Amino acid sequence: MARPRKVQELDEPHLEAWRSFLRAHARLTEVLEHELSRDAGLPLVWYDVLIQLHHAGGRLRMHDLARAVLLSRAGLTRLVDRISADGLVEREPCPDDRRGTFVLLTAKGIARLEEARPVHHDGIQEHFGRHVSLREAATLRRVFDRVLRQVEP
Amino acid sequence: MARPRKVQELDEPHLEAWRSFLRAHARLTEVLEHELSRDAGLPLVWYDVLIQLHHAGGRLRMHDLARAVLLSRAGLTRLVDRISADGLVEREPCPDDRRGTFVLLTAKGIARLEEARPVHHDGIQEHFGRHVSLREAATLRRVFDRVLRQVEP
Repeated sequence: MARPRKVQELDEPHLEAWRSFLRAHARLTEVLEHELSRDAGLPLVWYDVLIQLHHAGGRLRMHDLARAVLLSRAGLTRLVDRISADGLVEREPCPDDRRGTFVLLTAKGIARLEEARPVHHDGIQEHFGRHVSLREAATLRRVFDRVLRQVEP
Repeated sequence: MARPRKVQELDEPHLEAWRSFLRAHARLTEVLEHELSRDAGLPLVWYDVLIQLHHAGGRLRMHDLARAVLLSRAGLTRLVDRISADGLVEREPCPDDRRGTFVLLTAKGIARLEEARPVHHDGIQEHFGRHVSLREAATLRRVFDRVLRQVEP
């Protein structure tokens, strides 16, 4: 059965906005990854895992961590293995779910996060913040939050 | 030596805009990946490679393709191997560069791209376009293009 066509087709201004959004994301994460690794010795995908754990109070089920991270949902289990081998997180079995695992931020993980955070925030300011007016930042947040409300489960 | 502090620190409205931007990117690419695989049998990262080749006239050096793709810069060589095994692209040695390789879009690749494109564009419209006004789309494009001009090499 053919999918019903949308009443309104994607137009050129929205497609161009979409492409600029993807391009900016690819380029900015690449630059921030390079700088964070160079200046704080922490890969950006590690930072993402540590900061999501921190925002959640230091502990999340693997399943919830997979929903929280923003950069590496695909290879998360192996990524947690590597971060754990470096002592920045620990795994702990869930007492009430034999198949489940908690991921815990360690004191060493908190320390590395605290070191890396000002470097990363300087990078966000340098490559994003200082080029965006407060009014534009408000528009971005409003638009993306509206879009997210439609797709978040 | 300590890095010089930026004159202006990253403020909360810009950090919130940045987080919504990352969150929207993670969630939208996940949904669009799911729908494109389901409805057109094409992974989104394959689509990204095929469309960038198409925009470049059907042929790019591997090096330039790596700069053009938006979703999978890291594992590109292996990704091209898989797409090539399915006959959608071909590799061809560069005559003037022994280490270089061209990647060519095949007729089969063009056909798969043409099939997938309306499905993908419907998805972009459904999850992004229809929630964004023309004025907001213009703001997004303007902001991201401005940011890109600062980081593009």
